[in-house]
Amino acid sequence: MSEVLESYAQGSWFAPADEGVPLADANTGETVARISAAGLDVAGMVDHARRVGGPALRRLTFHQRAIILKELAKHLTEHKDEFYALSYRTGANKRDTMVDVDGGFGTLFSYSGKGRRELPNATVILDGPLEQLGRQGTFVGQHVYTSRPGVAVQINAFNFPVWGMLEKFAPAFLAGMPSIVKPASQTAYLTAAVVRRMVGSGLLPEGSLQFLAGSARGVLDHLGAQDIVGFTGSAATGATLRSHPNVVGGGVQLNVEADSLNCSILGPDVTPEDPEFDLYVKQVVTEMTVKAGQKCTAIRRVIVPEAMADAVTGALVDRLSKVVVGAADDPEARMGPLASLDQREEVRKAVKALRSSSTVVFGDPDGVEVAGADAEAGAFMSPVLLRAEPGAAEPHDVEAFGPVSTVITYSGVADAVELAARGRGSLVGSLVTNDPDVAREVVLGLAPWHGRILVLNRDDAKESTGHGSPLPVLVHGGPGRAGGGEELGGVRGVKHHMQRTAIQAPPDMVTAITGHWTTGSRRTVDDVHPFRKDLTQLRIGDTIASAERTVTRADIDHFAEFTGDTFYAHTDEEAAAANPLFGGIVAHGYLVVSLAAGLFVDPAPGPVLANFGVDNLRFLTPVKEDATIRVTLTAKQITPRSNADYGEVRWDAVVTNQDDEPVATYDVLTLVAKGEGE
Amino acid sequence: MSEVLESYAQGSWFAPADEGVPLADANTGETVARISAAGLDVAGMVDHARRVGGPALRRLTFHQRAIILKELAKHLTEHKDEFYALSYRTGANKRDTMVDVDGGFGTLFSYSGKGRRELPNATVILDGPLEQLGRQGTFVGQHVYTSRPGVAVQINAFNFPVWGMLEKFAPAFLAGMPSIVKPASQTAYLTAAVVRRMVGSGLLPEGSLQFLAGSARGVLDHLGAQDIVGFTGSAATGATLRSHPNVVGGGVQLNVEADSLNCSILGPDVTPEDPEFDLYVKQVVTEMTVKAGQKCTAIRRVIVPEAMADAVTGALVDRLSKVVVGAADDPEARMGPLASLDQREEVRKAVKALRSSSTVVFGDPDGVEVAGADAEAGAFMSPVLLRAEPGAAEPHDVEAFGPVSTVITYSGVADAVELAARGRGSLVGSLVTNDPDVAREVVLGLAPWHGRILVLNRDDAKESTGHGSPLPVLVHGGPGRAGGGEELGGVRGVKHHMQRTAIQAPPDMVTAITGHWTTGSRRTVDDVHPFRKDLTQLRIGDTIASAERTVTRADIDHFAEFTGDTFYAHTDEEAAAANPLFGGIVAHGYLVVSLAAGLFVDPAPGPVLANFGVDNLRFLTPVKEDATIRVTLTAKQITPRSNADYGEVRWDAVVTNQDDEPVATYDVLTLVAKGEGE
Repeated sequence: MSEVLESYAQGSWFAPADEGVPLADANTGETVARISAAGLDVAGMVDHARRVGGPALRRLTFHQRAIILKELAKHLTEHKDEFYALSYRTGANKRDTMVDVDGGFGTLFSYSGKGRRELPNATVILDGPLEQLGRQGTFVGQHVYTSRPGVAVQINAFNFPVWGMLEKFAPAFLAGMPSIVKPASQTAYLTAAVVRRMVGSGLLPEGSLQFLAGSARGVLDHLGAQDIVGFTGSAATGATLRSHPNVVGGGVQLNVEADSLNCSILGPDVTPEDPEFDLYVKQVVTEMTVKAGQKCTAIRRVIVPEAMADAVTGALVDRLSKVVVGAADDPEARMGPLASLDQREEVRKAVKALRSSSTVVFGDPDGVEVAGADAEAGAFMSPVLLRAEPGAAEPHDVEAFGPVSTVITYSGVADAVELAARGRGSLVGSLVTNDPDVAREVVLGLAPWHGRILVLNRDDAKESTGHGSPLPVLVHGGPGRAGGGEELGGVRGVKHHMQRTAIQAPPDMVTAITGHWTTGSRRTVDDVHPFRKDLTQLRIGDTIASAERTVTRADIDHFAEFTGDTFYAHTDEEAAAANPLFGGIVAHGYLVVSLAAGLFVDPAPGPVLANFGVDNLRFLTPVKEDATIRVTLTAKQITPRSNADYGEVRWDAVVTNQDDEPVATYDVLTLVAKGEGE
Repeated sequence: MSEVLESYAQGSWFAPADEGVPLADANTGETVARISAAGLDVAGMVDHARRVGGPALRRLTFHQRAIILKELAKHLTEHKDEFYALSYRTGANKRDTMVDVDGGFGTLFSYSGKGRRELPNATVILDGPLEQLGRQGTFVGQHVYTSRPGVAVQINAFNFPVWGMLEKFAPAFLAGMPSIVKPASQTAYLTAAVVRRMVGSGLLPEGSLQFLAGSARGVLDHLGAQDIVGFTGSAATGATLRSHPNVVGGGVQLNVEADSLNCSILGPDVTPEDPEFDLYVKQVVTEMTVKAGQKCTAIRRVIVPEAMADAVTGALVDRLSKVVVGAADDPEARMGPLASLDQREEVRKAVKALRSSSTVVFGDPDGVEVAGADAEAGAFMSPVLLRAEPGAAEPHDVEAFGPVSTVITYSGVADAVELAARGRGSLVGSLVTNDPDVAREVVLGLAPWHGRILVLNRDDAKESTGHGSPLPVLVHGGPGRAGGGEELGGVRGVKHHMQRTAIQAPPDMVTAITGHWTTGSRRTVDDVHPFRKDLTQLRIGDTIASAERTVTRADIDHFAEFTGDTFYAHTDEEAAAANPLFGGIVAHGYLVVSLAAGLFVDPAPGPVLANFGVDNLRFLTPVKEDATIRVTLTAKQITPRSNADYGEVRWDAVVTNQDDEPVATYDVLTLVAKGEGE
């Protein structure tokens, strides 16, 4: 008998108490593996994640977690062939498998990079600027994100057994939340193989990843206010989860990505002579055939101008007729089988429903010629294109989760937007146009109904990743029927796993809590210039209180001449006096910050390697001739880099004048050696 | 017979079809008004909001909407006395009324300010930086927020009839969503009076505000994927709403703020001799008595070190014994009645439940001496303090929504955090401590369970707005039992009413869609220097392509000497050669940007008034001696100010070297006159 998939629970592999049910090869119907969760202690898994995995993960900084994700991606890449072989059995051909397997690993790499570039090397994320809550500055507000001490239960769809897992796992891991991965049974053997390699890598803190093979029934019963369920699948199952008592009244956070009736609109400007026409036709056929159309993001509604409907339909039929259907590992075949015979039956039913208001213009839903494979034993199906009657309702409501799309016509741009909205919320929409006005009107009309919108034309066609591909750096999800969820989007997806909290406190307390120096808190001035301290010695709050310098009229004149910046406010007394903001000659802002640098820099070689930037520079009070300025520079944030022997130090800079008014505030960004202490 | 409240629906005031039910004065039991929604066309209100109010609002920019909010707040302030008189009848005394009425108007002012300072003078918000999705730069990603074309239905609690409405209305209005306000019946006559003034002001676009007096039953039946329900009230009603089919499967977005068992923790460092001890005791008594404890944010759990329990209890009893209960308009009384006799009955029931594991140490839940009012006719009640037995469950589970708190003891900081978490998610928690280490440990432990945390000590006591006061600039909401919602938080609350969408497109299309110049899109160079164009003439994309300038060693030497910035990388050949990043003398970053200004500035007086700042300056490539630099400056964003005859122009600046490598990138911020065209 074929292998029974094991779950990975509470630190060991668990074989179910029964023989499980068979999982069929999509091409041949042969049994690949068996699956069951009989006897699995799901409550114990939840507890293990909370008590072991979560705390272990949260002892690491974001950068440390990010590095693990990168190492993990490298480790998995070494075993790619193994995953490819199993992927073919799910019905995914080489192109499909790249999307799933390589796309999954790419998501790990992307999150690793984002984590190190865009998150602090710490465990708390600041959100937004400090809010001054009182005039004296003793009471301030700072929003922070902290990790939830719960578990992320990830219930995935059958169509992307690798990417589907990793796109949920990566942001959860980076956020400090342990994951329990529950794959769809049909293709769970591939997910299981990847999980086995992930666990075997030894890279993941114990308890940060568990694997539930088989039914997840009852798992929500064990969840509470700090837990998250991420679900990808049908709207119906999404609604069932949303009705669970622990979601309704127990505070479980639920994120749903459901199938959606995504549209692609051909702009009214495009004629068959334009390159956009071919781009449109190619894109529709690609989306119909990749993964045999079994993608939540595939194009279901082909929305075209009335006048173009025949031309588009003809071109689509022409192109579809060249699509060779065959076994997933057949290099001659463009499209593989659906994931299962059941799935094919579902799609056929949906096509039947669609036919009540649409006509099939290409493909036989009930039969297909298959080269070199048994069309009956495997879940093969022809691509099917329909054309909707005017006013048809079904194309906006019935989803055929396979290689099926419907052509719908529109009369004008507003009509196109309205038709798109009839899908009641989609994951993605696309527009093919070369007219910026059309782009503006259509995209802003579609935006509230979509999580992602692609605009395709001759300019981006070569680099476009396509309508159907969610990217780790962009949000994936959509309102309404699409589930109302949001995943990915770089750091946005990490924050969805964290709690945002407003802290109100005196500045010193905010500094203590966040580890980030806060305006108004204590500054430390000691005998050693902070530029002489490496990262083992430098502390948040270390401050340079500079000497003074008087800015003379000669300085201003000279700076104007030297730099060529002879703007009248610096050079022309009469005109400067007439300026409503200055009322007289003022020093250049660049002069002020240049002189400030002269005041704070410690020139000799030392741990400070470079000034690599300045943020949020604001000139608050004009510096007139003979003003005396000084600068206060305070170490605000210290971010050691994981892959270099230096780190970033962000300094709070305040330039004040002889009346102690701030004339300029900004952040100075430097690279400072890590060092080995004194 | 007393007046029946009218609804404001579809542009006119609607009197219900029946006599309605009476609403009683909390102090006397006299009928103040009657309420009913009989015959009201709720579906018509939803339709009116979507078809009339929403489009009217969305024709305005964020700044235009913000200005209306300010004018509205000014208009309402003129009628404050009228609202105060009605507020007393709800049982709110002067202090309570200030929180509700003035606090509500303050929220309008705050949103008006935030809208003009932090949002563009446009209708789309950009979210995050541009994402480069291809190496050639022809395919980029930009997240945007757009207004939902739906309606915000706001179901409010009885305790803050003014603030409760305005804290939901202001962010919705700013976001471009029309509101249907549904107050709790008990105190709806005050909300009605404010709405009548809001409508009467003539300031609001028709359809942007409607008012539903009476039961909202059935309103969710009419809502869909673009609509939002904001609910404040009991967890039980919240759960009912969350189970509605249009929430479960129809895509209605629901935000719940429910009552929560908020804690206040006394730090282990505090002794009766510390000022923090008194601050703690005062705060608890304040939170018990303001609004007679009828606040979602009041302190229900008084969590103190075991060793301090007697001292704290004694001090609380002492202070509570001085609280005078009386009619809301009695200046001698510190605490008014509850909102209704029913409400008092509910609280008494809850106290009974609490007594199963706690002992009453102050107050008689069933009787109170009331000065100058009829204690039976009015909903008067004594403050009640309980002390929990060790391990008591009820204080973490039973909410008495009145002047009732329970003292609970903890053994150590970790225990305090665990006790707080037993509330399963709260709107707010507070910590009184003067020890930064305690603050860090407790606050980071509490944070995932709270929407807001106050740290109180001697430093912020004077300016602190207190445990119980949500502020418009900070988020209000909490996980789990507190509802899992989030409101306010400045612009965050606006974004909750909008849809986030990832746009993937060529840069020119992103520019066309967002109205914000995007890196990689076309630059317009014409005969007129852009600094000579006022805001009527300047266009996004207008560009200065500057002349060149060679940076000589003499320039670097001179700049070092002139500014005093003699950092070795600019002055010491040998040391600079050893720097791992430079490998030789480099020009100062400040020199590069100063020379760049010399290259792009057009000196004569004109529409450009000032450079008020620089953002996101990054030095990308070292500028060595004899490098030749040039700068390209492009108008990126234009923000006319509503209250001045100039606006802000953000310029994209790129300094390149002789090899066309970027050496510095930044945004230059200028003020430019609006002008009147040529």
